Amino acid sequence: MDVFIEPIGRLINEFTKLPGVGRKTAQRYAYKIIGMSETEAKNFADSIVNCKRKVRYCKVCGNFTENEVCDVCLQRDKSTICVVKEPKDVVAMEKLHEYKGVYHVLHGVISPMEGIGPDDIRIKELLARIDDSVQEVIMATNPDVEGEATAMYIARLLKPLGVKVTRLAHGIPVGGELEYTDEVTLSRALIERKQI
Amino acid sequence: MDVFIEPIGRLINEFTKLPGVGRKTAQRYAYKIIGMSETEAKNFADSIVNCKRKVRYCKVCGNFTENEVCDVCLQRDKSTICVVKEPKDVVAMEKLHEYKGVYHVLHGVISPMEGIGPDDIRIKELLARIDDSVQEVIMATNPDVEGEATAMYIARLLKPLGVKVTRLAHGIPVGGELEYTDEVTLSRALIERKQI
Repeated sequence: MDVFIEPIGRLINEFTKLPGVGRKTAQRYAYKIIGMSETEAKNFADSIVNCKRKVRYCKVCGNFTENEVCDVCLQRDKSTICVVKEPKDVVAMEKLHEYKGVYHVLHGVISPMEGIGPDDIRIKELLARIDDSVQEVIMATNPDVEGEATAMYIARLLKPLGVKVTRLAHGIPVGGELEYTDEVTLSRALIERKQI
Repeated sequence: MDVFIEPIGRLINEFTKLPGVGRKTAQRYAYKIIGMSETEAKNFADSIVNCKRKVRYCKVCGNFTENEVCDVCLQRDKSTICVVKEPKDVVAMEKLHEYKGVYHVLHGVISPMEGIGPDDIRIKELLARIDDSVQEVIMATNPDVEGEATAMYIARLLKPLGVKVTRLAHGIPVGGELEYTDEVTLSRALIERKQI
Protein backbone atom coordinates (compact mmCIF):
# COMPACT_ATOMS: atom_id res chain seq x y z
CA MET A 1 0.00 0.00 0.00
CA ASP A 2 2.40 2.68 -1.16
CA VAL A 3 -0.48 5.16 -1.32
CA PHE A 4 0.15 5.88 2.38
CA ILE A 5 3.25 7.60 3.70
CA GLU A 6 5.31 5.42 6.03
CA PRO A 7 4.07 6.55 9.50
CA ILE A 8 0.42 6.22 8.44
CA GLY A 9 1.01 2.88 6.71
CA ARG A 10 2.75 1.56 9.81
CA LEU A 11 -0.07 2.69 12.12
CA ILE A 12 -2.67 1.12 9.80
CA ASN A 13 -0.71 -2.15 9.95
CA GLU A 14 -0.71 -2.04 13.74
CA PHE A 15 -4.45 -1.43 13.90
CA THR A 16 -5.15 -4.43 11.63
CA LYS A 17 -3.68 -6.61 14.41
CA LEU A 18 -6.75 -5.89 16.54
CA PRO A 19 -9.50 -8.52 16.31
CA GLY A 20 -11.98 -7.94 13.47
CA VAL A 21 -10.18 -4.88 12.12
CA GLY A 22 -9.57 -4.82 8.35
CA ARG A 23 -7.55 -2.30 6.35
CA LYS A 24 -10.48 0.03 5.80
CA THR A 25 -11.34 0.23 9.49
CA ALA A 26 -7.66 0.52 10.43
CA GLN A 27 -7.44 3.44 8.00
CA ARG A 28 -10.36 5.20 9.73
CA TYR A 29 -8.71 4.64 13.12
CA ALA A 30 -5.41 6.05 11.80
CA TYR A 31 -7.15 9.20 10.50
CA LYS A 32 -8.76 9.61 13.89
CA ILE A 33 -5.32 9.46 15.55
CA ILE A 34 -3.95 12.05 13.11
CA GLY A 35 -6.91 14.27 13.93
CA MET A 36 -6.19 14.05 17.68
CA SER A 37 -4.11 16.56 19.59
CA GLU A 38 -0.53 15.55 20.43
CA THR A 39 -1.53 15.05 24.09
CA GLU A 40 -4.49 12.87 23.22
CA ALA A 41 -2.37 10.65 20.98
CA LYS A 42 0.30 10.47 23.67
CA ASN A 43 -2.30 9.44 26.27
CA PHE A 44 -3.64 6.79 23.94
CA ALA A 45 -0.18 5.33 23.38
CA ASP A 46 0.66 5.54 27.09
CA SER A 47 -2.47 3.65 28.07
CA ILE A 48 -1.41 0.78 25.81
CA VAL A 49 2.09 0.52 27.27
CA ASN A 50 0.76 1.10 30.78
CA CYS A 51 -1.90 -1.60 30.47
CA LYS A 52 0.57 -4.12 29.04
CA ARG A 53 3.15 -3.33 31.73
CA LYS A 54 0.88 -3.23 34.78
CA VAL A 55 -1.57 -6.01 34.10
CA ARG A 56 -0.56 -9.52 35.07
CA TYR A 57 -2.31 -12.66 36.19
CA CYS A 58 -3.30 -13.22 39.83
CA LYS A 59 -1.17 -16.09 41.09
CA VAL A 60 -4.16 -17.55 42.92
CA CYS A 61 -7.11 -17.30 40.54
CA GLY A 62 -5.45 -16.40 37.21
CA ASN A 63 -7.58 -13.28 36.65
CA PHE A 64 -6.10 -9.93 35.59
CA THR A 65 -4.57 -7.92 38.41
CA GLU A 66 -2.09 -5.14 39.06
CA ASN A 67 -0.69 -6.91 42.14
CA GLU A 68 0.53 -10.38 42.87
CA VAL A 69 -2.89 -11.42 44.17
CA CYS A 70 -6.09 -9.78 42.90
CA ASP A 71 -8.55 -7.83 45.04
CA VAL A 72 -11.23 -10.47 44.62
CA CYS A 73 -8.96 -13.18 46.05
CA LEU A 74 -7.89 -10.88 48.90
CA GLN A 75 -11.28 -9.60 49.97
CA ARG A 76 -13.99 -12.07 49.14
CA ASP A 77 -15.55 -15.21 50.53
CA LYS A 78 -13.24 -18.13 49.65
CA SER A 79 -15.76 -20.87 50.41
CA THR A 80 -17.17 -20.67 46.87
CA ILE A 81 -15.02 -20.82 43.74
CA CYS A 82 -16.51 -20.01 40.34
CA VAL A 83 -14.53 -21.69 37.54
CA VAL A 84 -14.50 -19.82 34.20
CA LYS A 85 -12.67 -20.15 30.91
CA GLU A 86 -11.25 -16.65 30.49
CA PRO A 87 -10.82 -13.35 32.38
CA LYS A 88 -13.62 -11.81 30.32
CA ASP A 89 -16.02 -14.35 31.84
CA VAL A 90 -15.13 -12.94 35.27
CA VAL A 91 -16.22 -9.53 33.96
CA ALA A 92 -19.56 -11.02 32.83
CA MET A 93 -20.14 -12.52 36.28
CA GLU A 94 -19.00 -9.40 38.15
CA LYS A 95 -21.49 -7.25 36.23
CA LEU A 96 -24.27 -9.10 38.08
CA HIS A 97 -23.04 -7.70 41.42
CA GLU A 98 -24.58 -10.83 42.95
CA TYR A 99 -21.78 -13.35 43.22
CA LYS A 100 -19.78 -12.91 46.41
CA GLY A 101 -17.26 -15.76 46.08
CA VAL A 102 -13.88 -16.00 44.33
CA TYR A 103 -12.94 -17.18 40.85
CA HIS A 104 -10.65 -19.59 39.12
CA VAL A 105 -9.72 -18.76 35.53
CA LEU A 106 -8.73 -21.85 33.52
CA HIS A 107 -7.28 -19.87 30.58
CA GLY A 108 -8.82 -22.32 28.14
CA VAL A 109 -10.92 -25.45 28.00
CA ILE A 110 -10.02 -29.05 27.17
CA SER A 111 -10.20 -29.40 23.40
CA PRO A 112 -8.71 -32.56 21.84
CA MET A 113 -9.43 -31.06 18.38
CA GLU A 114 -7.05 -28.19 19.12
CA GLY A 115 -4.63 -30.38 21.05
CA ILE A 116 -5.46 -28.78 24.42
CA GLY A 117 -5.37 -31.38 27.18
CA PRO A 118 -6.10 -31.14 30.92
CA ASP A 119 -2.46 -30.25 31.63
CA ASP A 120 -2.58 -27.24 29.31
CA ILE A 121 -5.15 -25.36 31.38
CA ARG A 122 -5.09 -24.35 35.05
CA ILE A 123 -6.71 -27.50 36.51
CA LYS A 124 -3.79 -28.46 38.80
CA GLU A 125 -3.87 -24.96 40.26
CA LEU A 126 -7.60 -25.38 40.95
CA LEU A 127 -7.09 -28.71 42.73
CA ALA A 128 -4.33 -27.16 44.84
CA ARG A 129 -6.82 -24.55 46.07
CA ILE A 130 -9.31 -27.10 47.39
CA ASP A 131 -9.14 -27.49 51.16
CA ASP A 132 -11.68 -27.82 53.98
CA SER A 133 -12.69 -24.16 53.70
CA VAL A 134 -14.03 -24.64 50.16
CA GLN A 135 -17.67 -25.64 50.19
CA GLU A 136 -18.74 -25.27 46.59
CA VAL A 137 -17.18 -25.07 43.16
CA ILE A 138 -19.44 -23.56 40.48
CA MET A 139 -18.51 -24.69 36.97
CA ALA A 140 -19.22 -21.68 34.77
CA THR A 141 -17.50 -22.71 31.55
CA ASN A 142 -19.42 -21.99 28.35
CA PRO A 143 -22.36 -24.30 27.53
CA ASP A 144 -20.64 -25.65 24.39
CA VAL A 145 -19.08 -29.08 23.79
CA GLU A 146 -15.62 -28.17 25.14
CA GLY A 147 -17.05 -26.21 28.06
CA GLU A 148 -19.36 -29.06 29.10
CA ALA A 149 -16.62 -31.67 28.74
CA THR A 150 -14.21 -29.56 30.80
CA ALA A 151 -16.84 -29.03 33.51
CA MET A 152 -17.52 -32.79 33.67
CA TYR A 153 -13.82 -33.62 33.76
CA ILE A 154 -13.12 -31.21 36.60
CA ALA A 155 -16.24 -32.30 38.50
CA ARG A 156 -14.98 -35.90 38.44
CA LEU A 157 -11.66 -34.79 39.90
CA LEU A 158 -13.28 -32.69 42.61
CA LYS A 159 -15.93 -35.07 43.89
CA PRO A 160 -13.48 -37.46 45.63
CA LEU A 161 -12.22 -34.39 47.52
CA GLY A 162 -15.67 -34.07 49.08
CA VAL A 163 -16.49 -30.68 47.61
CA LYS A 164 -19.89 -29.81 46.19
CA VAL A 165 -19.70 -29.13 42.46
CA THR A 166 -22.46 -27.24 40.67
CA ARG A 167 -23.06 -26.07 37.11
CA LEU A 168 -24.85 -22.93 35.89
CA ALA A 169 -28.44 -23.78 34.93
CA HIS A 170 -29.50 -24.24 31.34
CA GLY A 171 -32.91 -23.13 30.17
CA ILE A 172 -34.90 -20.57 28.26
CA PRO A 173 -33.27 -17.11 28.36
CA VAL A 174 -35.32 -14.61 30.36
CA GLY A 175 -37.42 -12.56 27.94
CA GLY A 176 -36.96 -15.23 25.24
CA GLU A 177 -39.75 -16.96 23.36
CA LEU A 178 -40.51 -20.67 23.26
CA GLU A 179 -40.97 -20.48 19.49
CA TYR A 180 -37.42 -19.26 18.91
CA THR A 181 -35.65 -21.37 21.54
CA ASP A 182 -33.48 -24.08 19.99
CA GLU A 183 -34.51 -27.66 20.62
CA VAL A 184 -31.56 -28.64 22.79
CA THR A 185 -32.12 -25.69 25.12
CA LEU A 186 -35.88 -26.29 25.26
CA SER A 187 -35.31 -29.97 25.99
CA ARG A 188 -32.91 -29.07 28.83
CA ALA A 189 -35.44 -26.56 30.17
CA LEU A 190 -38.07 -29.31 30.22
CA ILE A 191 -35.82 -31.88 31.92
CA GLU A 192 -34.69 -29.35 34.52
CA ARG A 193 -38.19 -27.96 35.16
CA LYS A 194 -38.89 -26.77 38.70
CA GLN A 195 -41.93 -26.89 40.92
CA ILE A 196 -43.46 -23.46 41.49
CA MET B 1 -17.25 0.15 35.14
CA ASP B 2 -15.46 -0.87 38.32
CA VAL B 3 -15.40 -4.47 37.10
CA PHE B 4 -12.16 -3.62 35.29
CA ILE B 5 -8.90 -2.80 37.05
CA GLU B 6 -7.64 0.71 36.35
CA PRO B 7 -5.11 0.12 33.52
CA ILE B 8 -7.61 -2.02 31.57
CA GLY B 9 -10.47 0.41 32.21
CA ARG B 10 -8.31 3.29 31.01
CA LEU B 11 -7.28 1.47 27.83
CA ILE B 12 -10.90 0.54 27.09
CA ASN B 13 -11.82 4.22 27.48
CA GLU B 14 -9.13 5.20 25.01
CA PHE B 15 -10.27 2.65 22.45
CA THR B 16 -13.86 3.92 22.61
CA LYS B 17 -12.54 7.22 21.21
CA LEU B 18 -11.96 5.51 17.86
CA PRO B 19 -14.81 5.91 15.35
CA GLY B 20 -17.52 3.25 15.65
CA VAL B 21 -15.95 1.53 18.65
CA GLY B 22 -18.29 0.79 21.58
CA ARG B 23 -17.38 -0.57 25.00
CA LYS B 24 -17.71 -4.21 23.96
CA THR B 25 -15.36 -3.81 20.99
CA ALA B 26 -12.96 -1.68 23.04
CA GLN B 27 -12.90 -4.48 25.60
CA ARG B 28 -11.93 -7.02 22.91
CA TYR B 29 -9.17 -4.70 21.69
CA ALA B 30 -7.87 -4.28 25.25
CA TYR B 31 -7.73 -8.05 25.77
CA LYS B 32 -5.81 -8.33 22.52
CA ILE B 33 -3.26 -5.79 23.78
CA ILE B 34 -2.89 -7.69 27.07
CA GLY B 35 -2.31 -10.87 25.08
CA MET B 36 0.48 -9.24 23.04
CA SER B 37 4.16 -9.46 23.95
CA GLU B 38 5.69 -6.40 25.64
CA THR B 39 7.54 -5.55 22.39
CA GLU B 40 4.41 -5.80 20.27
CA ALA B 41 2.47 -3.52 22.62
CA LYS B 42 5.42 -1.10 22.66
CA ASN B 43 5.54 -1.05 18.84
CA PHE B 44 1.82 -0.43 18.70
CA ALA B 45 2.07 2.51 21.09
CA ASP B 46 5.15 3.87 19.29
CA SER B 47 3.42 3.81 15.93
CA ILE B 48 0.64 6.01 17.36
CA VAL B 49 3.03 8.62 18.77
CA ASN B 50 5.25 8.38 15.70
CA CYS B 51 2.35 8.87 13.29
CA LYS B 52 0.97 11.81 15.24
CA ARG B 53 4.41 13.43 15.49
CA LYS B 54 5.64 12.91 11.93
CA VAL B 55 2.52 13.45 9.88
CA ARG B 56 1.63 17.00 8.95
CA TYR B 57 -0.13 18.75 6.11
CA CYS B 58 1.65 19.59 2.86
CA LYS B 59 1.82 23.39 2.71
CA VAL B 60 0.97 23.30 -0.99
CA CYS B 61 -1.83 20.76 -1.38
CA GLY B 62 -2.92 20.10 2.21
CA ASN B 63 -2.45 16.33 1.98
CA PHE B 64 -0.63 14.29 4.66
CA THR B 65 3.16 14.41 4.41
CA GLU B 66 6.27 13.86 6.48
CA ASN B 67 8.00 16.87 4.93
CA GLU B 68 7.07 20.45 4.30
CA VAL B 69 5.90 19.66 0.79
CA CYS B 70 4.55 16.20 -0.13
CA ASP B 71 6.10 13.87 -2.71
CA VAL B 72 3.16 14.26 -5.04
CA CYS B 73 3.58 18.03 -5.17
CA LEU B 74 7.34 17.68 -5.67
CA GLN B 75 7.35 15.05 -8.36
CA ARG B 76 4.18 15.15 -10.39
CA ASP B 77 2.68 17.05 -13.30
CA LYS B 78 1.39 20.38 -11.94
CA SER B 79 -0.74 21.25 -14.96
CA THR B 80 -3.69 19.32 -13.53
CA ILE B 81 -5.04 19.81 -10.00
CA CYS B 82 -7.59 17.40 -8.56
CA VAL B 83 -9.65 19.05 -5.81
CA VAL B 84 -10.88 16.72 -3.05
CA LYS B 85 -12.57 17.12 0.29
CA GLU B 86 -10.25 15.12 2.53
CA PRO B 87 -6.87 13.34 2.53
CA LYS B 88 -8.62 9.97 2.36
CA ASP B 89 -10.05 10.97 -1.02
CA VAL B 90 -6.47 11.34 -2.28
CA VAL B 91 -5.91 7.74 -1.21
CA ALA B 92 -8.99 6.64 -3.18
CA MET B 93 -7.69 8.43 -6.30
CA GLU B 94 -4.11 7.19 -5.87
CA LYS B 95 -5.28 3.58 -5.72
CA LEU B 96 -6.26 3.91 -9.39
CA HIS B 97 -2.61 4.46 -10.37
CA GLU B 98 -4.01 6.41 -13.33
CA TYR B 99 -4.05 10.03 -12.26
CA LYS B 100 -0.71 11.72 -12.87
CA GLY B 101 -1.48 15.26 -11.70
CA VAL B 102 -1.37 16.91 -8.27
CA TYR B 103 -4.05 17.39 -5.63
CA HIS B 104 -5.66 20.10 -3.57
CA VAL B 105 -7.29 19.02 -0.32
CA LEU B 106 -10.03 21.39 0.83
CA HIS B 107 -10.33 19.88 4.35
CA GLY B 108 -14.08 20.20 4.21
CA VAL B 109 -16.90 21.39 1.97
CA ILE B 110 -19.14 24.42 2.14
CA SER B 111 -22.07 23.54 4.40
CA PRO B 112 -24.33 26.38 5.60
CA MET B 113 -26.17 23.87 7.80
CA GLU B 114 -22.98 23.22 9.77
CA GLY B 115 -21.85 26.81 9.57
CA ILE B 116 -18.95 26.07 7.21
CA GLY B 117 -18.48 28.89 4.72
CA PRO B 118 -16.06 29.32 1.80
CA ASP B 119 -13.47 30.93 4.10
CA ASP B 120 -13.40 27.90 6.38
CA ILE B 121 -12.01 25.55 3.76
CA ARG B 122 -8.84 25.84 1.66
CA ILE B 123 -10.31 27.72 -1.31
CA LYS B 124 -8.02 30.78 -1.07
CA GLU B 125 -5.02 28.44 -1.13
CA LEU B 126 -6.38 26.81 -4.28
CA LEU B 127 -6.85 30.17 -6.04
CA ALA B 128 -3.28 31.12 -5.08
CA ARG B 129 -2.00 28.02 -6.89
CA ILE B 130 -3.61 28.93 -10.21
CA ASP B 131 -1.13 30.34 -12.70
CA ASP B 132 -0.45 29.92 -16.43
CA SER B 133 1.00 26.44 -15.92
CA VAL B 134 -2.32 25.08 -14.64
CA GLN B 135 -4.45 23.76 -17.49
CA GLU B 136 -7.20 21.86 -15.73
CA VAL B 137 -8.82 21.67 -12.31
CA ILE B 138 -10.79 18.48 -11.70
CA MET B 139 -13.48 18.91 -9.05
CA ALA B 140 -13.61 15.57 -7.23
CA THR B 141 -15.69 16.48 -4.19
CA ASN B 142 -18.34 13.93 -3.20
CA PRO B 143 -21.50 13.79 -5.33
CA ASP B 144 -23.72 14.94 -2.45
CA VAL B 145 -25.42 18.30 -1.94
CA GLU B 146 -22.48 19.98 -0.17
CA GLY B 147 -19.92 18.45 -2.52
CA GLU B 148 -21.82 19.60 -5.62
CA ALA B 149 -22.39 23.09 -4.23
CA THR B 150 -18.71 23.43 -3.32
CA ALA B 151 -17.66 22.25 -6.78
CA MET B 152 -19.98 24.78 -8.41
CA TYR B 153 -18.81 27.60 -6.13
CA ILE B 154 -15.14 26.92 -6.86
CA ALA B 155 -15.79 26.49 -10.59
CA ARG B 156 -17.35 29.96 -10.70
CA LEU B 157 -14.27 31.43 -9.05
CA LEU B 158 -11.87 29.62 -11.36
CA LYS B 159 -13.48 30.28 -14.73
CA PRO B 160 -12.57 34.01 -14.85
CA LEU B 161 -8.94 32.91 -14.38
CA GLY B 162 -9.16 31.12 -17.72
CA VAL B 163 -8.63 27.62 -16.36
CA LYS B 164 -10.59 24.59 -17.55
CA VAL B 165 -12.72 23.16 -14.74
CA THR B 166 -14.08 19.62 -14.96
CA ARG B 167 -16.14 17.38 -12.67
CA LEU B 168 -15.99 13.60 -12.23
CA ALA B 169 -18.69 11.94 -14.35
CA HIS B 170 -21.90 10.66 -12.81
CA GLY B 171 -23.56 7.51 -14.08
CA ILE B 172 -24.28 3.87 -13.47
CA PRO B 173 -21.52 2.18 -11.44
CA VAL B 174 -19.58 -0.39 -13.49
CA GLY B 175 -21.01 -3.84 -12.75
CA GLY B 176 -24.19 -2.27 -11.37
CA GLU B 177 -27.71 -3.05 -12.53
CA LEU B 178 -30.24 -0.65 -14.03
CA GLU B 179 -32.94 -2.11 -11.79
CA TYR B 180 -31.11 -1.16 -8.62
CA THR B 181 -29.72 2.19 -9.74
CA ASP B 182 -31.37 5.10 -7.96
CA GLU B 183 -33.46 7.44 -10.10
CA VAL B 184 -31.23 10.51 -9.78
CA THR B 185 -28.16 8.55 -10.90
CA LEU B 186 -30.04 6.90 -13.77
CA SER B 187 -31.40 10.24 -14.87
CA ARG B 188 -27.86 11.72 -14.86
CA ALA B 189 -26.59 8.71 -16.80
CA LEU B 190 -29.30 9.30 -19.42
CA ILE B 191 -28.60 13.03 -19.73
CA GLU B 192 -24.86 12.47 -19.98
CA ARG B 193 -25.15 9.54 -22.43
CA LYS B 194 -22.33 9.18 -24.95
CA GLN B 195 -22.18 8.13 -28.55
CA ILE B 196 -20.50 4.73 -29.01
